[in-house]
Amino acid sequence: MAVYTQVGDDELVAFLADYDVGNLLSFKGIAEGVENSNYLVATTAGQFILTLYEKRFAEADLPFFVGLMAHLAANGISCPTPLTTRDGKQIGQLSGRPAALISFLEGFWLRKPKPENCHAVGRALAELHAAGTGFDQHRTNALSLADWTRLFARFEARADEIHPDLGDAIATELHTLEALWPDAAALPAGVIHADLFPDNVFFRDGQLSGIIDFYFACNDHLAYDIAIALNAWCFETNYAFNLTKGRALLSGYEQVRELEANEADLLPILCRGAALRFLLTRAFDWLHTDPAALVKPHDPRAYLRRLWVHQSMTGPADYGWRNEGAS
Amino acid sequence: MAVYTQVGDDELVAFLADYDVGNLLSFKGIAEGVENSNYLVATTAGQFILTLYEKRFAEADLPFFVGLMAHLAANGISCPTPLTTRDGKQIGQLSGRPAALISFLEGFWLRKPKPENCHAVGRALAELHAAGTGFDQHRTNALSLADWTRLFARFEARADEIHPDLGDAIATELHTLEALWPDAAALPAGVIHADLFPDNVFFRDGQLSGIIDFYFACNDHLAYDIAIALNAWCFETNYAFNLTKGRALLSGYEQVRELEANEADLLPILCRGAALRFLLTRAFDWLHTDPAALVKPHDPRAYLRRLWVHQSMTGPADYGWRNEGAS
Repeated sequence: MAVYTQVGDDELVAFLADYDVGNLLSFKGIAEGVENSNYLVATTAGQFILTLYEKRFAEADLPFFVGLMAHLAANGISCPTPLTTRDGKQIGQLSGRPAALISFLEGFWLRKPKPENCHAVGRALAELHAAGTGFDQHRTNALSLADWTRLFARFEARADEIHPDLGDAIATELHTLEALWPDAAALPAGVIHADLFPDNVFFRDGQLSGIIDFYFACNDHLAYDIAIALNAWCFETNYAFNLTKGRALLSGYEQVRELEANEADLLPILCRGAALRFLLTRAFDWLHTDPAALVKPHDPRAYLRRLWVHQSMTGPADYGWRNEGAS
Repeated sequence: MAVYTQVGDDELVAFLADYDVGNLLSFKGIAEGVENSNYLVATTAGQFILTLYEKRFAEADLPFFVGLMAHLAANGISCPTPLTTRDGKQIGQLSGRPAALISFLEGFWLRKPKPENCHAVGRALAELHAAGTGFDQHRTNALSLADWTRLFARFEARADEIHPDLGDAIATELHTLEALWPDAAALPAGVIHADLFPDNVFFRDGQLSGIIDFYFACNDHLAYDIAIALNAWCFETNYAFNLTKGRALLSGYEQVRELEANEADLLPILCRGAALRFLLTRAFDWLHTDPAALVKPHDPRAYLRRLWVHQSMTGPADYGWRNEGAS
């Protein structure tokens, strides 16, 4: 939550001159985005988001992310769209960083989503999966099962500083998932968002108005994306799974694409994997963030609690899948 | 440069319902303002700045600041204006903090101001001083000479960590200024901005479009405000005083209000005081900011260098005052 690169007015004016966006009216750094610097830019042609991709960011992946946003927008998904310069570029250079000018999306994210919002999110996720078909670039998930193991090895010795016996719990879960995780070809696959948390979905007047932040997007099991969304949207603050929200999210998804039987059967395993993935990255950040830093890391224990819930699930009906009678 | 208080969508919608501003379209925390939290809020009625006043902020001063902005705007100054709720309030409560919804000002600040910009700033400052006449509230400058002495006492023992012999230099300068500083009644006084740095002045298409950030405004010598602006606008990056810019700023000011002879004569002393004021607050912050914090404190030595320049000045002509021949 910060602006890492300061942009000057002269260089921004020069950068914008390559686009058909009129004259600069104002620009302000916005306190969003953990990895990159973002500015809200107003010109005589409207509002835009200016993103400067910071050093931690894998520059080689930029054409995938920017191309994906353009592809999804061209296929009916409401998402930020990179603007193109007069000579056809979507990625430029500004203040020494790769930079893109991106369309502004109206709406705001919901701090307390309701079941009907979860239904809309499920539906939008399936639409996103459908729209991703035909995108001609490929990006391997950089946070897959093998990466989880490697990431865990980097902080295993200190894991119990976060929670008693957390190291053993993660090691056991990794072992279980290595045995049960589906092969690449076992489930329908495609482009997934991979980070569909409430702060990445905008609503306006109660309607879903768009999806943002495609910087974890990659190719993987489509149902793994559903598992991430179930983790992110359907838990109470006391870590109880909200069956009504789960049912809403899954039925919303199935309005567009019905789950195959093996996808549904694997939901508890995929949800365990999704919980473990966020537990691991949060635990790593927790142990590696200076306590004095302004950016407070997310509490990894919120995903340990979710993992416990998933471990107790017996099948997809426990998530509300085609479970109309449950409440 | 941060958002200290997180605002939820439900509570913001409830807060906005007291104003005639239509429906919420989006809101984003902006990375501006050191003391307070600021959001850029878009509604069906337009764009606004939402400011939450944080704990370090003296709440008792809020009616002065908010009232001053409204008074100046009503008297022709282009500055942010607090909106009024249907029941007549300009300060409300949001997320446990006092909060105000303020008009959005187009334009952006100049990283490299030119002499013509300094001329516009001088003129706007005199207009601000004129418009402040008739404002019926009073706020004593909380960073006056007596406060400088108290602030210095809090870090005197560590001053030399910043620069060799800085402690002695400050003590000597304080002693000099105590002897030479003008009494309250000695010079024309009124409401001053007291922080007119380039990042608080917006330009659009080369024209000054407005002045922001009135949270240091107070009653003091009007010429002290000029001295602050000369420090902030008229130095090169190598700390040489730019006579062309000084002449531009002062002649811009005098297009609206001519300086009295004693104001002009005291410019070197007032400029020394202004340099010392920013040297002191920056030095204090420098010694009291955690090195790991994301907000980097300003380098106090930039104002020690300015102070040396002012100490060498022999009269107002050295700042370009009515000095048309100089270059």
